[in-house]
Amino acid sequence: MTRKIIIDTDPGQDDAVAILLALGSPELEVLGITCVAGNVPLALTSKNARIVCELAGRRDVKVFAGCDRPLLRPLVTAEYVHGKTGLDGIPLPEPTMALQDQHAVDFIIETLRSEAPGTVTLCPLGPLTNIATAFRRAPEIISKVEQIVLMGGAYFEVGNTTPAAEFNIYVDPQAAEIVFKCGAPVVVVPLDATHKALTTRPRIEAFRALGTPVGAAVASWTDFFERFDMAKYGSEGAPLHDPCVIAWLLRPDLFEGRFINVEIETHSELTMGMTVADWWRVTKREPNALFLRDVDADGFYTLLTERLARL
Amino acid sequence: MTRKIIIDTDPGQDDAVAILLALGSPELEVLGITCVAGNVPLALTSKNARIVCELAGRRDVKVFAGCDRPLLRPLVTAEYVHGKTGLDGIPLPEPTMALQDQHAVDFIIETLRSEAPGTVTLCPLGPLTNIATAFRRAPEIISKVEQIVLMGGAYFEVGNTTPAAEFNIYVDPQAAEIVFKCGAPVVVVPLDATHKALTTRPRIEAFRALGTPVGAAVASWTDFFERFDMAKYGSEGAPLHDPCVIAWLLRPDLFEGRFINVEIETHSELTMGMTVADWWRVTKREPNALFLRDVDADGFYTLLTERLARL
Amino acid sequence: MTRKIIIDTDPGQDDAVAILLALGSPELEVLGITCVAGNVPLALTSKNARIVCELAGRRDVKVFAGCDRPLLRPLVTAEYVHGKTGLDGIPLPEPTMALQDQHAVDFIIETLRSEAPGTVTLCPLGPLTNIATAFRRAPEIISKVEQIVLMGGAYFEVGNTTPAAEFNIYVDPQAAEIVFKCGAPVVVVPLDATHKALTTRPRIEAFRALGTPVGAAVASWTDFFERFDMAKYGSEGAPLHDPCVIAWLLRPDLFEGRFINVEIETHSELTMGMTVADWWRVTKREPNALFLRDVDADGFYTLLTERLARL
Amino acid sequence: MTRKIIIDTDPGQDDAVAILLALGSPELEVLGITCVAGNVPLALTSKNARIVCELAGRRDVKVFAGCDRPLLRPLVTAEYVHGKTGLDGIPLPEPTMALQDQHAVDFIIETLRSEAPGTVTLCPLGPLTNIATAFRRAPEIISKVEQIVLMGGAYFEVGNTTPAAEFNIYVDPQAAEIVFKCGAPVVVVPLDATHKALTTRPRIEAFRALGTPVGAAVASWTDFFERFDMAKYGSEGAPLHDPCVIAWLLRPDLFEGRFINVEIETHSELTMGMTVADWWRVTKREPNALFLRDVDADGFYTLLTERLARL
Repeated sequence: MTRKIIIDTDPGQDDAVAILLALGSPELEVLGITCVAGNVPLALTSKNARIVCELAGRRDVKVFAGCDRPLLRPLVTAEYVHGKTGLDGIPLPEPTMALQDQHAVDFIIETLRSEAPGTVTLCPLGPLTNIATAFRRAPEIISKVEQIVLMGGAYFEVGNTTPAAEFNIYVDPQAAEIVFKCGAPVVVVPLDATHKALTTRPRIEAFRALGTPVGAAVASWTDFFERFDMAKYGSEGAPLHDPCVIAWLLRPDLFEGRFINVEIETHSELTMGMTVADWWRVTKREPNALFLRDVDADGFYTLLTERLARL
Repeated sequence: MTRKIIIDTDPGQDDAVAILLALGSPELEVLGITCVAGNVPLALTSKNARIVCELAGRRDVKVFAGCDRPLLRPLVTAEYVHGKTGLDGIPLPEPTMALQDQHAVDFIIETLRSEAPGTVTLCPLGPLTNIATAFRRAPEIISKVEQIVLMGGAYFEVGNTTPAAEFNIYVDPQAAEIVFKCGAPVVVVPLDATHKALTTRPRIEAFRALGTPVGAAVASWTDFFERFDMAKYGSEGAPLHDPCVIAWLLRPDLFEGRFINVEIETHSELTMGMTVADWWRVTKREPNALFLRDVDADGFYTLLTERLARL
Repeated sequence: MTRKIIIDTDPGQDDAVAILLALGSPELEVLGITCVAGNVPLALTSKNARIVCELAGRRDVKVFAGCDRPLLRPLVTAEYVHGKTGLDGIPLPEPTMALQDQHAVDFIIETLRSEAPGTVTLCPLGPLTNIATAFRRAPEIISKVEQIVLMGGAYFEVGNTTPAAEFNIYVDPQAAEIVFKCGAPVVVVPLDATHKALTTRPRIEAFRALGTPVGAAVASWTDFFERFDMAKYGSEGAPLHDPCVIAWLLRPDLFEGRFINVEIETHSELTMGMTVADWWRVTKREPNALFLRDVDADGFYTLLTERLARL
Repeated sequence: MTRKIIIDTDPGQDDAVAILLALGSPELEVLGITCVAGNVPLALTSKNARIVCELAGRRDVKVFAGCDRPLLRPLVTAEYVHGKTGLDGIPLPEPTMALQDQHAVDFIIETLRSEAPGTVTLCPLGPLTNIATAFRRAPEIISKVEQIVLMGGAYFEVGNTTPAAEFNIYVDPQAAEIVFKCGAPVVVVPLDATHKALTTRPRIEAFRALGTPVGAAVASWTDFFERFDMAKYGSEGAPLHDPCVIAWLLRPDLFEGRFINVEIETHSELTMGMTVADWWRVTKREPNALFLRDVDADGFYTLLTERLARL
């Protein structure tokens, strides 16, 4: 039986790989892709999502545009990581499939209302604005969510955007607070996990060796993407953050984590958007999230390459 | 020519009087009444709005239910002021007219999209959750708003809910921040103005003397309502906060204020929801709101009584 | 029996009048004057205090220099109110009496240790840095303080420095927090009281009519000082803030206030230094200060003029 | 030539080892030991410092009592780590040497005033209350400090007291802010470094094998001390935090770090006391501290054991 998911995303090269991983996995049924402003503005993320669907030969996937800015704060984007288009790498054709007319938030609400309770998983790969807006608009849908598996936050591996905060949470900390406090089961894939699944030359070449348009695109994206991390951290490669969310759905055994309390800092500018994770259980606060810290990198890349090969 | 308004409200006795004042004023066309959680929970505010429409003989007015809780914070209500129903006073029949199916936020968005730009005024009388959610969902509507005339906040007359904050803003400070920073023209009717329009025995009796069901209801509501303020402030009567918003639309000459910068405190619990009004212009922050401080109380009550007489 | 006081001050014209009022009052024994940075830097406040003592013919009064900046924040001064010297008005001779060698904080500690418990009142007229530093250095002296009667803060009359804060508290909010939470009896003379004791032409002329150097100086200071408030608030005169502290010691019957909880905002920049006074008792927080809101202005000016006449 | 240091401390077993390491090192001249409330209350820390001096046969070392609580916040202690006395381990005799009469803060001020500029290094091993108070009382001494080498904070290894903060900084974040912003050269030994120098069975036994009272005491302290960390972190041993400060003075080549900006969180309770270290240089804030992240553990323990052997 397949698992129904909605991918909420702001592609971004690693978002694109996550979408491809989902589309290449028969265990998953992608009910829709909802786009949000994040890595690049909404006009680009909702275009990039369609480029990726077409690359995968899946013009049938429904793509929706959602919120074009965070709940409260001005939009911050990350072209310095992802390039001007958000999907810099090899040239890809403009999408010809259309965006859905419906607003992403309405699609999320409607879907959760119409599907059987506990059968739809939300996979947010960007700022949590769409999800939080949907939860505020229709709070009764929260109890119908099977799981929220999100990429965002950091605890030991802090500091990809500010010294205290990871990009997705920093961009919309108020939305994150709504999601982390919503009561639905939350799985967090933070930098702590994704930084343990770095690209390497052989891993990138394995994508290219697929000999398919998908393989070529993914290789070019990771080539582009890793420059930033290698320059900044001096690491051997770059983390493929967002595909870890999909990988966790397919193979949770590849990951390790703890079910702990995670609070979002929303009061102080200095630490705004920090995911304050009580990893060592030094507070009495109630656990509200499964916070992943480790991943089997080889297992992850093997899975990813095998699924990309199917597209 | 009539002025088109949407009343966004959480009745509340004074909200009810504001609705009646609007319905009794031929200068105004009430496009819809959108309800929000505030003084009492959403189920009651959306029922009370209909009770009031039926009392006015206006079953044709569209009433919508909106957000049932603030953007980020848990809902705080004020039954200690308004009574258990929110409309305590003389008994009134259960409403028979139906709520609209459409969500209040969608109605606000659709209306602003379909009406001519600059022709619709929003009149929020409660927490700003519906308005903020609409602005976040469809930011392009902001530029189409003629004016936002809202009841909320306090500067010199601080402290009806916490020592620093007024109820409407305190309940949803994040929503208030969105509205005060939205860029549309904002007129604020704070406690500073409303506390200068207190009920008195003769003013209440003038309502009752109308000899109509509306007059009797308004007199009973103000009787009920003023107990709280008289006990707390030792004042001669109670402020009729929300009708001041409608009165300003009809007779702005009755009010005085300054066009100044108003910021919303959202960082510190101690002062959460304070409307930090730069009345004395001691900062260099840009003005963003007309902040009213005074009202001609006699003029206001004369206007109010005269209009209620028409219903 | 005389009451022993330490005046902690940052003169400032109104500080100077307060010192003169104390020196002209036989009910008070000024054990020492401790200076702090505030209206102007420490070098000027500790010089101005001596100018004032010499003007009063009291070269015997001990004057101490204390802290030259707030506990945590950079020093903010107010030359735009007080002029470049802090004591702008008629020219006065440079002081010839020496500063004491001892640090103001050490003098405060030593005095409270050596005097009988409950016999020394602290009268802070500026930022609370000296007092807070002494309390932190020697916490056991707190229980020996008879009373702390301070000028600072505002609740209804907010906004002389920022829209939320009064100057003395704004300059060193952390010091204020220490003092307001110290447990000793605190009397607060906020802007709410001092703005009800404005100078007027006849009141200023009554100083001048004393025909003494003191009268001439006080008249020239108030002439200088009131320009700022008249321009800003459009008021008829200016408040003589600091002398109200001394007046309260002499004639508490001239004042009205409430014993309430007062918290200091130290978390948010927007409202930093606000004295959050629970005047309406809407919280359950414990009362910790007598917060004055009203003063008999005629009684105050009569007292002041009569005492200045003795110098 | 020896280097003059003042050890500011709240012993604490690891503080005790740090003191012994300093006393056993001829390169260092300990001008005085100033005690502060921290791991245990001031009465115990100022007693424990003397116990340690007597254990080392150094009754001549001057020990001073300082501040008994943080600048602003209530004192938090850590008996759950250090035991009821702060020095739980083998029984040691009560000290017979006296505390100095002078207050620790006064000693720090006087020493920095009387010694040649740039010749005295401060070594804070506990909350920074004494140092901050001295800097506030006598700001001119800041420029005379050679270096401040302190144990405190954490960036990657967050969370020994709250999920965001290390104990020393958490206890007095305002004092830490003063010290980190003071302008003197600051070297930070955070948990990131100390957690890389864990005790092991052979390392502890090497202390015991010294066959001296010092060796026996240090072995018993580390035995006691490591239980807490082993239970909490599941690590092989416990970090000897404070001796790293002294080790850095003796052998900076054993450490690695970066000269970066470090800010202290003082606004939000959730992240209060966090040392927000810009390790990846993602902000434009000016570097203000050398923040150590690594230590050669074998080199450190060899040095420590060798120096303890001299006592």
